[in-house]
Amino acid sequence: MLDKLKTEVYDANMRLPKLGLVTFTWGNVSGIDRDKGLFVIKPSGVDYDDLKPSDMVVVDLNGKVVEGNMNPSSDTPTHTVLYNAFPKIGGIVHTHSEMAVAFASARLDIPAVNTTHADTFYNDIPVTEPLTKAEIEDAYEENTGKVIVKTFADRGLDYDATPGCLVGQHGPFTWGATPDKAVYNAKVLEVCANIAYHATMLTHKDIHVPQYLLDKHYYRKHGANAYYGQNNPDSKNHAAREEK
Amino acid sequence: MLDKLKTEVYDANMRLPKLGLVTFTWGNVSGIDRDKGLFVIKPSGVDYDDLKPSDMVVVDLNGKVVEGNMNPSSDTPTHTVLYNAFPKIGGIVHTHSEMAVAFASARLDIPAVNTTHADTFYNDIPVTEPLTKAEIEDAYEENTGKVIVKTFADRGLDYDATPGCLVGQHGPFTWGATPDKAVYNAKVLEVCANIAYHATMLTHKDIHVPQYLLDKHYYRKHGANAYYGQNNPDSKNHAAREEK
Amino acid sequence: MLDKLKTEVYDANMRLPKLGLVTFTWGNVSGIDRDKGLFVIKPSGVDYDDLKPSDMVVVDLNGKVVEGNMNPSSDTPTHTVLYNAFPKIGGIVHTHSEMAVAFASARLDIPAVNTTHADTFYNDIPVTEPLTKAEIEDAYEENTGKVIVKTFADRGLDYDATPGCLVGQHGPFTWGATPDKAVYNAKVLEVCANIAYHATMLTHKDIHVPQYLLDKHYYRKHGANAYYGQNNPDSKNHAAREEK
Amino acid sequence: MLDKLKTEVYDANMRLPKLGLVTFTWGNVSGIDRDKGLFVIKPSGVDYDDLKPSDMVVVDLNGKVVEGNMNPSSDTPTHTVLYNAFPKIGGIVHTHSEMAVAFASARLDIPAVNTTHADTFYNDIPVTEPLTKAEIEDAYEENTGKVIVKTFADRGLDYDATPGCLVGQHGPFTWGATPDKAVYNAKVLEVCANIAYHATMLTHKDIHVPQYLLDKHYYRKHGANAYYGQNNPDSKNHAAREEK
Repeated sequence: MLDKLKTEVYDANMRLPKLGLVTFTWGNVSGIDRDKGLFVIKPSGVDYDDLKPSDMVVVDLNGKVVEGNMNPSSDTPTHTVLYNAFPKIGGIVHTHSEMAVAFASARLDIPAVNTTHADTFYNDIPVTEPLTKAEIEDAYEENTGKVIVKTFADRGLDYDATPGCLVGQHGPFTWGATPDKAVYNAKVLEVCANIAYHATMLTHKDIHVPQYLLDKHYYRKHGANAYYGQNNPDSKNHAAREEK
Repeated sequence: MLDKLKTEVYDANMRLPKLGLVTFTWGNVSGIDRDKGLFVIKPSGVDYDDLKPSDMVVVDLNGKVVEGNMNPSSDTPTHTVLYNAFPKIGGIVHTHSEMAVAFASARLDIPAVNTTHADTFYNDIPVTEPLTKAEIEDAYEENTGKVIVKTFADRGLDYDATPGCLVGQHGPFTWGATPDKAVYNAKVLEVCANIAYHATMLTHKDIHVPQYLLDKHYYRKHGANAYYGQNNPDSKNHAAREEK
Repeated sequence: MLDKLKTEVYDANMRLPKLGLVTFTWGNVSGIDRDKGLFVIKPSGVDYDDLKPSDMVVVDLNGKVVEGNMNPSSDTPTHTVLYNAFPKIGGIVHTHSEMAVAFASARLDIPAVNTTHADTFYNDIPVTEPLTKAEIEDAYEENTGKVIVKTFADRGLDYDATPGCLVGQHGPFTWGATPDKAVYNAKVLEVCANIAYHATMLTHKDIHVPQYLLDKHYYRKHGANAYYGQNNPDSKNHAAREEK
Repeated sequence: MLDKLKTEVYDANMRLPKLGLVTFTWGNVSGIDRDKGLFVIKPSGVDYDDLKPSDMVVVDLNGKVVEGNMNPSSDTPTHTVLYNAFPKIGGIVHTHSEMAVAFASARLDIPAVNTTHADTFYNDIPVTEPLTKAEIEDAYEENTGKVIVKTFADRGLDYDATPGCLVGQHGPFTWGATPDKAVYNAKVLEVCANIAYHATMLTHKDIHVPQYLLDKHYYRKHGANAYYGQNNPDSKNHAAREEK
């Protein structure tokens, strides 16, 4: 069942340690088959070295396990909320990548301060309010998804143009058209956090790029006038085929 | 004698350089057989490349070598004190991992500022007072153990819930149910130090997480209501099977 | 056509990830045949693992593709401007190396604060003004080249003595006598940015080296009195043969 | 001639990139045969991949090449001065390791703030005054050696107890009983710089360790009462056999 998607999700999970985004098994990737309304996610707490495509767990959009012998990632309710709220996304990634978690701990957005950021994120990468006591004690992981959705709604952000978020006091979630693209965005988010950290330390001024720079970078990769890569106009190229 | 434990301790020692926690041979791991009242520790000053399971030295809880041709780690008296004072621990690790040593040099606790920290440490990771002149000049390594025990007693900390400590002006010690789990905690401590450093630089505010977040993370991994990994309730899973 | 140069440019591109200068495919190298007035550049958005020497695209000094089945790098107009303005250079590199982008984001020059810098760059590495709205919306990549040329003209800098520049809010471009030398300069620029960052944080004072130190380091590697390496006087040694 | 020493010096040079201490070929190691009054040093500007033991150049204590087809390292006059001034040392290392160069650029000593430092360096690692215009323009490399010797004399430092120095605006030199031990000290110096940087940023207070801690660490590794490693009392153990 969903063997191709399981392999795709497995491969995307295995890229996380290679990209330096996870310590131990602190990360997970899922991918969805929108036609069937089912998503595939990493099982909870299995070593990357032991993981196999067939270990992936199939879950429906109510968060119910449909197939699989193992427990799905404990973050499954977060993924469920995001798939329901963000209908265009095909994959989700959660990591504890360290510079992103530093911004989440400081409860600061990752500011858009250069073209590296603008090429992938059309806005500052927002940090949510930390969960309240009630939200943590009841349905913690589900509420983690809800606070992301609420943050995007409150700020009027387009989840397709800004494919990632920091959960306050916790860490980053990213998404994309495919699991692979969501992994790409997780790496870009960490790189942007690292650069923004050092730029901020150097100057302590407001160094946001202007809106017209954000517009330019967004539209040269998206829509009818895109001119990036070998096959544009097409915003769904294989993630690794992006170039600057 | 204790061949299985020697292999376990050997393997745990060999993980330290792989996890980026040691330069040269600046680290050691031990593990204890509580029934026999004996622990096994790395010999002093042997290259990791030359180390063999049979080189491990067997020591009793008075710190006396019971078996082994080589000198045990010079930190053996520290381990002896900790095994006697903390009866539930099965393994101890000492490293000079760099961000942890930075906090120890600055004589600052590693503050609990995110879920990464809360998943493993129920409190700020405390830093001890530096040893006094008398403590350093007489029985230095033994006093290193004693200042850790005193710090936990003075602050009313539970060593099982906060499985690590910084010795002021020196560096980190961690422990756990097994040598492998103690190594896991040594890595988490270094990651937490790295993140807390950058978060602190970004904001210079008090960004401690609230107590209810610490409670939530502690109890979802420990005790009857734990729901992590494939075999919970069970707080003794193989370290690498933790997942966030 | 230009097979030797294609191999040289291919090899130089492949060095970028090995030197830790690129994430994904965020970098490009070109090299020029001055006699033919043609340059060779990486195609746009192809994975490093899939890249072959024969994929390199040949472009003339009007920026017109002369040979190649793939789109050239989207930065090709920047390279075209630089080859026309800087007649002595034989290769150009663009990366998003992270400490360099931090300085570009903060809109700060990389200050010349030590001999490591002075051995390769005779001045502070300048940061350009960010592009204006008009410059970004029309002929963005061409204007990126022009702002570099303008910065060198306005400041009276010699592009041969200071073989690199930061584009404000964007990142570094370097050049050199050959593609390989331009790659070497890209790595030195990133190392200098990293060191200057930490030195600046430590002291927040003006720590520029004096002019006579810059002179000494420049002239011991360049011109008739150079005494570096095995074949001096010769400023065109293979990049990796530099030594300090 | 001196084949065994050439191999030893070659091996020590090859350790520098493995320890992350050099970019390109920016480092050199030499070793001396005190009986013959000759030292062996890396040739100038040869790639590490191309280097062979037989390429090592033999130089006498007047700095004259005695054997070898290649130019010796351009830093040879610095090594000559140090071998003459510090009669007990058997090997010298120079690198541009990045955190050490940051301190040298900021013209700050690396402060002794923890036991990691105290285990190898009995004092703050001093930074020299930058060379004057006259010193740079005439016999630059020789004067680099002289300013190190002068700094140790002016401050009353024992080169055997503090086996390293930063040259202001330049970078680190270390030495030791053997070339291998000098490499070990070069790595420790860089680790100490990295830790001291972060500790300083965290606290901006004077966090020097007390003199009695420096005494304790020095004397437990040196002299009749040393108790480290497998063969003490012996301060000349293979470098990598140090343990904390």
